[in-house]
Amino acid sequence: MPREPKWDRVLTSAARLFAEDGFAATSVRAVAERARLTKAGLYYHIKEKEDLLYRICEQSISDILDGARAALARESDAAAGLAAIIRNHCAFFFRHPHNLTVLNRDMGALTGQQREAVRALEKDYLDLIREVFRDGQRQGRFRKLDPTVAAFGLLGVLNTLDRWYDAAGQVKPESLVEQLEILLMQGFVLPEGRRK
Amino acid sequence: MPREPKWDRVLTSAARLFAEDGFAATSVRAVAERARLTKAGLYYHIKEKEDLLYRICEQSISDILDGARAALARESDAAAGLAAIIRNHCAFFFRHPHNLTVLNRDMGALTGQQREAVRALEKDYLDLIREVFRDGQRQGRFRKLDPTVAAFGLLGVLNTLDRWYDAAGQVKPESLVEQLEILLMQGFVLPEGRRK
Repeated sequence: MPREPKWDRVLTSAARLFAEDGFAATSVRAVAERARLTKAGLYYHIKEKEDLLYRICEQSISDILDGARAALARESDAAAGLAAIIRNHCAFFFRHPHNLTVLNRDMGALTGQQREAVRALEKDYLDLIREVFRDGQRQGRFRKLDPTVAAFGLLGVLNTLDRWYDAAGQVKPESLVEQLEILLMQGFVLPEGRRK
Repeated sequence: MPREPKWDRVLTSAARLFAEDGFAATSVRAVAERARLTKAGLYYHIKEKEDLLYRICEQSISDILDGARAALARESDAAAGLAAIIRNHCAFFFRHPHNLTVLNRDMGALTGQQREAVRALEKDYLDLIREVFRDGQRQGRFRKLDPTVAAFGLLGVLNTLDRWYDAAGQVKPESLVEQLEILLMQGFVLPEGRRK
């Protein structure tokens, strides 16, 4: 499948419609109309509606994962790495707010190999985060929390932003990121005096 | 609608089926069978399937809210109150793991007055949590985070437990609660030396 602007427009349109009306209730025709394609033109790129859901999920998690890996490659310190993961995840949400809703609610509609592929990416991201927690604990800088509990705690905060956060509201995006960093970093990282 | 054991069995059966198969894909007949009632017997208690979803959501949030209010009535200190809210929410999840999934995923299927009623309960719970944060800030004990960001951060961690936590896995329920308390309390509450 091509990664050209037209295709990006298809995925953006599909993500928005899935987020607003749900995957089940959205027709391929509606996606085509929103993306300014004919239904036949859209079916040139996909075999069935599930392919759209798959591409949204696959590209979203890959995007978050690539960003997190690139950020971690620049940081040797686990605390700085954790902060970079938080900022990267938030930046993805600001760029693609609807995609997080689709990931949260509709990903379960995927089946077979597509389901497996997306689950594998999710697992890669989870493993990456757990490894940062393990690094931080080895460096004596992180609290002794179970890395799985810590990672899902982090993801719980970041993956539910779409449920409530409105970038047009009182809390500006920069302020949101700053506050989530305080909340999460203090929760995970030991204060200076208690590091060992 | 009666609150007798039979009715409890209906709601437990419905929550489990909705959580496993989704609200849309679950039939009233399947709920009746699981609750060991005839379909006609079940329709004696409800007018339509949505009534089951409504009762699950309404009773779940009421249960969490009543528990939180009772716990807060015993605590004058905001940090102790916050810890009590965390424990109460976890305890609900352990008692009704499926209900959290239904609240997260299917509550959007409610319409009209039922939707309004459940949203009002959610808002009451959110306000209660925000008030604890405001109290803690007034007491000089909590970090200066926006109470809405803080409350949704807390809820993000607690409301997504159903996505990953398995009480039969390595992390026992008591340990989960203990770790979430560390993570969240440290994230929200100032360390002793920095209180003012």
